[in-house]
Amino acid sequence: MKIEYQLEKVEKNTKARLGKIKTNHGCYDTPMFMPVGTKANVKSLTPEQVKDCNAAIVLANTYHLWLRPGEDVINHAGGLHKFMNYDGPILTDSGGFQVFSLAKNKKKDITEEGVHFKSHIDGKSLFLTPEKSIQIQNKLDSDIAMSFDECPPASASYDYLKNSVERTLRWAARGKQAHTNKNQSLFGIVQGGAYEDLRKYSAIETVKMDFDGYSIGGVANDGESKEDMYKAIDYSIPYLPNDKVRYLMGVGDPIDIIEGVIRGIDIFDCVLPTRIARHGQAFTRKGKINLNNSKYLEDFTTIDESCDCYTCKHYTKSYIRHLITTKESLGGTLLSIHNIRFLIKLTEELRIAIKEDNILEYKDEFIKKYCNK
Amino acid sequence: MKIEYQLEKVEKNTKARLGKIKTNHGCYDTPMFMPVGTKANVKSLTPEQVKDCNAAIVLANTYHLWLRPGEDVINHAGGLHKFMNYDGPILTDSGGFQVFSLAKNKKKDITEEGVHFKSHIDGKSLFLTPEKSIQIQNKLDSDIAMSFDECPPASASYDYLKNSVERTLRWAARGKQAHTNKNQSLFGIVQGGAYEDLRKYSAIETVKMDFDGYSIGGVANDGESKEDMYKAIDYSIPYLPNDKVRYLMGVGDPIDIIEGVIRGIDIFDCVLPTRIARHGQAFTRKGKINLNNSKYLEDFTTIDESCDCYTCKHYTKSYIRHLITTKESLGGTLLSIHNIRFLIKLTEELRIAIKEDNILEYKDEFIKKYCNK
Repeated sequence: MKIEYQLEKVEKNTKARLGKIKTNHGCYDTPMFMPVGTKANVKSLTPEQVKDCNAAIVLANTYHLWLRPGEDVINHAGGLHKFMNYDGPILTDSGGFQVFSLAKNKKKDITEEGVHFKSHIDGKSLFLTPEKSIQIQNKLDSDIAMSFDECPPASASYDYLKNSVERTLRWAARGKQAHTNKNQSLFGIVQGGAYEDLRKYSAIETVKMDFDGYSIGGVANDGESKEDMYKAIDYSIPYLPNDKVRYLMGVGDPIDIIEGVIRGIDIFDCVLPTRIARHGQAFTRKGKINLNNSKYLEDFTTIDESCDCYTCKHYTKSYIRHLITTKESLGGTLLSIHNIRFLIKLTEELRIAIKEDNILEYKDEFIKKYCNK
Repeated sequence: MKIEYQLEKVEKNTKARLGKIKTNHGCYDTPMFMPVGTKANVKSLTPEQVKDCNAAIVLANTYHLWLRPGEDVINHAGGLHKFMNYDGPILTDSGGFQVFSLAKNKKKDITEEGVHFKSHIDGKSLFLTPEKSIQIQNKLDSDIAMSFDECPPASASYDYLKNSVERTLRWAARGKQAHTNKNQSLFGIVQGGAYEDLRKYSAIETVKMDFDGYSIGGVANDGESKEDMYKAIDYSIPYLPNDKVRYLMGVGDPIDIIEGVIRGIDIFDCVLPTRIARHGQAFTRKGKINLNNSKYLEDFTTIDESCDCYTCKHYTKSYIRHLITTKESLGGTLLSIHNIRFLIKLTEELRIAIKEDNILEYKDEFIKKYCNK
């Protein structure tokens, strides 16, 4: 079946939405943060560790899996769920973002047909089209596939963006046409930078195609400001239907998640919690901390006293600092668990705030602590 | 309390022993394989994952923990168990082996007082003595501490080894004198290369000092042959008391474990299962396999059909190969779990074989499959 979104409540003072997503792999509450499992695993974590963070949907990357091990291998394995041993829902991106961010030397040739570029692994010439992206995702058999879109940088001109939005719409239509997996949902992506008319146009035209959900893209590509991100959301949301889920792509900063939820976003994904973990950084209610700091050498308290994650239940900053500074990968694993749980717990608290109609107070309170104001 | 060893049975046709070790952190069956947690963690695994392999004693490295984070940090944390969140027994080595194997440029200056050498991390001058090694281990508060010994290479001459054995005996006496942790057991180490008279002398003199257990060292230093290892065991065992545990240091090859058990060894440790895991290798009943091999690209069977580990319950060779070849650390984690469980399961089967008095048949059967004979 396709996913179903059920809107349960809109918060009194904002556009924040409480809802449920029904998938082939369980029913889950929104707003929700989705951990990223780039190459069919959330870096260094077992699926049990991911689920223990109360994660629901996990994101996997079509571009990476297309290159290695190849979509046919995963298809022959019985699909992504069986391959990676994850029985929760999986969303695959379209590969579009990686083509634009990872292509060797960032060189690519965008034609109406698709994008020619070179592999970031071995420099091999590759060609990705809307049809190919969907065919790969059909074979991966994720719960949710994304349309193939162009992800222009924040520096792109209005004229460039206008053309790009038009092409992305044509690509979305071609992808929808090519989509054959009856058990897989397909989302459309709204682009248009920080321009009100482009976002409106992109949203209206994408919604006309009737996708199973809608995503707002182009907010975390390359150099977008927070202001532009909030504009992109505000300009797109009014034209998205209430009965479909709304996904803000690539966003995982805690404050951005709060701002996104307030503006009407339901789901988020980002590599941030696992990436900063590998560098020794942890989210806390009082802002990010870096466990490499020597002040934690004999700090026998947990990362965040209000946290209920596995890491905070069992380990001190002193121990995690030791693992991080001696390059033991368990350090990154423990911090990844904490950081993922931190963002998921944040969305759980936002759901309560929506229920209680006090999300603006929650935001103020959170930011006051998080930014040490 | 000190550990207690209870001999339950000697196998009918060999010297293989079934026994129990009672520690401050539980009572466990021997023969036993101990996973190595060099820097206060079994590389990339949580303590729960280690325990899930049915592990009991875990080994940690005094040399590494002395350098980072320092024994005082761990002492202030409440000892190694609390620091690393492991509630099973912990054995610490003396640092002797690392001094001889890891010292910068392998240069060291051995005096009667101790060993001068340079840190493998930053080249800093260090001085380790029998007393210092024991003081560090006392502070780490492991269940079992090891005496500080010299680990000469296999190429050492008889005369060198004779002097070395004498010095190691004097060091053992000094360490025993310095040992003050009433809750920590202290083991003596038998040295003497592959020379019958030296092993006999070393064993008899070490036993005279009345340690809580005895270890056979110098069998996995640098270039020892299997034949020399078996000689070292055979020449030492007759002089070790029946009511104390016997530990063969640094040995983790499956066939060596079987041969060691047959010769009367109770416990083993080795980095082998986790080290080869990080390079993509797995133990199987039919010998070691390398998951980098392209023949596993679409191999949707588990590593070893007879294995009951977490990895073999949930993952295919195809998936693990994908993780290993794309350098995802979860691949090494999954293989570490499998390899540790493989060796622990081997010791479980050896215990049954001892009970059933058929360990020689078990050995023949195992080797026939493992070596594809």
